[in-house]
Amino acid sequence: MKQAKTISKAVIKRLPRYRRYLGELKKRGVEKISSKDLSELIGYTASQIRQDLNNFGGFGQQGYGYSVANLYDEISNILGLNKEYKIVVVGYGRLGQAMASYINKNEKQFIIEGIFDVSDKVAGEVFKDVNVYAINDLKDFVKENDIEIAVVTVPKEKGQMVADTLVEAGIKGIWNFSSVDLELPENIRVENVHMSDSLHALAYYMKDK
Amino acid sequence: MKQAKTISKAVIKRLPRYRRYLGELKKRGVEKISSKDLSELIGYTASQIRQDLNNFGGFGQQGYGYSVANLYDEISNILGLNKEYKIVVVGYGRLGQAMASYINKNEKQFIIEGIFDVSDKVAGEVFKDVNVYAINDLKDFVKENDIEIAVVTVPKEKGQMVADTLVEAGIKGIWNFSSVDLELPENIRVENVHMSDSLHALAYYMKDK
Repeated sequence: MKQAKTISKAVIKRLPRYRRYLGELKKRGVEKISSKDLSELIGYTASQIRQDLNNFGGFGQQGYGYSVANLYDEISNILGLNKEYKIVVVGYGRLGQAMASYINKNEKQFIIEGIFDVSDKVAGEVFKDVNVYAINDLKDFVKENDIEIAVVTVPKEKGQMVADTLVEAGIKGIWNFSSVDLELPENIRVENVHMSDSLHALAYYMKDK
Repeated sequence: MKQAKTISKAVIKRLPRYRRYLGELKKRGVEKISSKDLSELIGYTASQIRQDLNNFGGFGQQGYGYSVANLYDEISNILGLNKEYKIVVVGYGRLGQAMASYINKNEKQFIIEGIFDVSDKVAGEVFKDVNVYAINDLKDFVKENDIEIAVVTVPKEKGQMVADTLVEAGIKGIWNFSSVDLELPENIRVENVHMSDSLHALAYYMKDK
């Protein structure tokens, strides 16, 4: 499979959505689907779908459509979801627990190796079979266990401090829920989840009505 | 202020980010800012920023830049954040509690009037001064209290059922964390937060490195 050099961010953002729907179709035993039917399901135009998938060499056949299982696998490959990731969750508050629980249930390829909290009090607890540690142990733990991704759920004020520790320890990616834009070296990948942004967009759409 | 008829979704998605940075600047006592400085801060190009804000009539003055407080207020107005919203949180699990706690702390204009859970066992509890009710009371509560927005944090399997109840009760907007695309009448606004989509994009960027 030929992979194009530069795929726009917008396309990348859409791929998980394709994969999600294809996963549902696969579960329901659907074997193939046309770009038109996929379009009705996902809500993008058929031409948008063909264009998106052409970025990666295209997997459809004229007059046949897409093989659901194939397309699902190919998109998984493209996204890098054909492997396991060792991760840590930093922050053992409500959000940290919610995310640990969510990942544990829905994202089997992301293996939570440890949970860390800024309070020493919770060290020693076990959450969903995962040990909870004090934040002081974070750096060594990430290094020694080759942790690739950290899910950062600490409050705003602690976000950069935690990120600095993770970078020193050699983390590769940060899934950032701390509502602060982190200053990171260029080789560290980050996905910021700003909860409020989506709530504010909702307010706009309601007003716009 | 003249408001353009159709603002692209991409622009709307960027406005909360502008507002967030402007809010920080305001807090730090900064009174005016050029599009160039705003660009360095936010990470969009200066021309992108001017173009975005021109959608709404533009608020800058040549050679002076933007008044931080003015621009913040104007964007708040545009987003519909110059008023209060009565909301409910549906789902009193870890995610529901995390979101209720987050809104309570960070989103003062969104007033949580009640929390609802599919389990009757938690009815009667109080979380951050908000009463927890059984899901059976949801419909009447939304109607009687003119609730505008529901934050839906129930599991996938319950998402559509909860949404149907909310629609019957006259809800206007849904902030949907239930990881399922809801079928809703066209006049109901929805913002879907698919946690996994952003994790999968992170995996892609790490692979792409």
